[in-house]
Amino acid sequence: MSGKVALICGAGQFPLVAARAAEVRGQEVFLLALKGIASEGVANFPHVWLGVGQLGAALREIEARGIKDICFIGGLGRPEFADLRPDWGAIKRLPDIFRLLKGGDDHALKGVIKLFESEGLRVIGVETLAPELVAAPGEMNRLAFPAEMAEDLAFGHDCLAALSAFDCGQALVLAKRRIVALEAAEGTDAMLLRVAELREKGRWRAKGPAGMLIKAPKKGQDLRVDLPAMGPETVASAAKAGLMGIAVEAGRVLILDRAAVAAQAEKAGLFLYGFSRETQV
Amino acid sequence: MSGKVALICGAGQFPLVAARAAEVRGQEVFLLALKGIASEGVANFPHVWLGVGQLGAALREIEARGIKDICFIGGLGRPEFADLRPDWGAIKRLPDIFRLLKGGDDHALKGVIKLFESEGLRVIGVETLAPELVAAPGEMNRLAFPAEMAEDLAFGHDCLAALSAFDCGQALVLAKRRIVALEAAEGTDAMLLRVAELREKGRWRAKGPAGMLIKAPKKGQDLRVDLPAMGPETVASAAKAGLMGIAVEAGRVLILDRAAVAAQAEKAGLFLYGFSRETQV
Repeated sequence: MSGKVALICGAGQFPLVAARAAEVRGQEVFLLALKGIASEGVANFPHVWLGVGQLGAALREIEARGIKDICFIGGLGRPEFADLRPDWGAIKRLPDIFRLLKGGDDHALKGVIKLFESEGLRVIGVETLAPELVAAPGEMNRLAFPAEMAEDLAFGHDCLAALSAFDCGQALVLAKRRIVALEAAEGTDAMLLRVAELREKGRWRAKGPAGMLIKAPKKGQDLRVDLPAMGPETVASAAKAGLMGIAVEAGRVLILDRAAVAAQAEKAGLFLYGFSRETQV
Repeated sequence: MSGKVALICGAGQFPLVAARAAEVRGQEVFLLALKGIASEGVANFPHVWLGVGQLGAALREIEARGIKDICFIGGLGRPEFADLRPDWGAIKRLPDIFRLLKGGDDHALKGVIKLFESEGLRVIGVETLAPELVAAPGEMNRLAFPAEMAEDLAFGHDCLAALSAFDCGQALVLAKRRIVALEAAEGTDAMLLRVAELREKGRWRAKGPAGMLIKAPKKGQDLRVDLPAMGPETVASAAKAGLMGIAVEAGRVLILDRAAVAAQAEKAGLFLYGFSRETQV
């Protein structure tokens, strides 16, 4: 990367952590904070607040600073069209925007990338901006990934891959070749709390810690926009669900403060394993 | 079918309704009611109570009556091995039983069929015993299946088909090509109540009735054992979730009292549509 990078900041602490990590690496950043979505903490960086629909203004701010690289980071939710309040720059591009808002998340986000690329910008992923924020390969704490779970991991990852075509499902819980829960619109934490309930109600019976959470991006997902993320809540919910551990795709799942999350998982008795397709059975 | 049919009765009213429907068709039935699982109502039919593990006794009861056809009906849950209390007939077959209890539901049930077939019995499906208990093709009430949802139906059914290989997922909720919820161990009703919550919390935003429940057996599922089922609770939960309607695979989803369920759906403003692969776009 040469010159400044514009971070288009959605919700949560990830954008701020990524901005700080980039700065530590000597990268100049400029934050475009989405109104009503981004954290107030953007004030600690050079920034401007913009509405989600202010595409024209966003492009002007980027161009005015001679920025060529942009990076999307942080959750967006799924804005309602009525909330978008499009500016003229957005209205000009309405046909494209309508097209890209149809269908699932991935579909929409690919459209967003194309929209910015068609303006001559380069869209980079967070793993390029701050590689220390993504899952490391192998065991991330002192709890070993149990060899007997390798087959389950491959099975579960195949299932997530099969779901990719349907633009949903970046996580599931399984134990002994049985898929206990599949994530769709509810999100990973809600899915894990459901697993905890299923155990309480005896709908999923297992003695002691059992099963694992598997999380990976969709096959063909454009990682420059929406790497899946996990954090302390994920670990807490996985612990509530009584799992053995968490397996995430190395290099392709964001972990805010990896060391702390790995330690928290270890304390809760959960392995935290970064798998890659090659390391699977 | 010639002669009596043995119904191996799991939980709920389905076994009783099927037994009555078969009798109305002039078919003699004998019920093997699973202890702690089957409804007390089996007392209205020629019957015997047996533990889930009493395979030897079950085979003796069947043979003693010269019965050649058996039909499994009603939910089993997933018995814990400790609850099975195997008799000698079961213990002799333990290696087979262990093999068949590994993996998902479908896997296990295929094993059960093989076990009975290896004893010279024929396993028939409920749709053979009582065809009036399965979903009819086309519209089952006066609410039309919206033509603009045909593409969503095909998309959702493809998704369920893709999940078949992973032995989970017989139902999902989707709207405008977005999959809102996927069923795994929680069951259809719990999934629908989750959708209702997602709407309340604004995680799935839609004005007025939107989306549909799609339910179909797994591809390659042995329909002789575990046809998926829907009933009044499914309709009530789908209404709570604010759906437009319910699409089930015709001939391959059980509906206890189809006419009443169709009327209940109509009253709740829900279409009830029996699709077949051929009627899809």
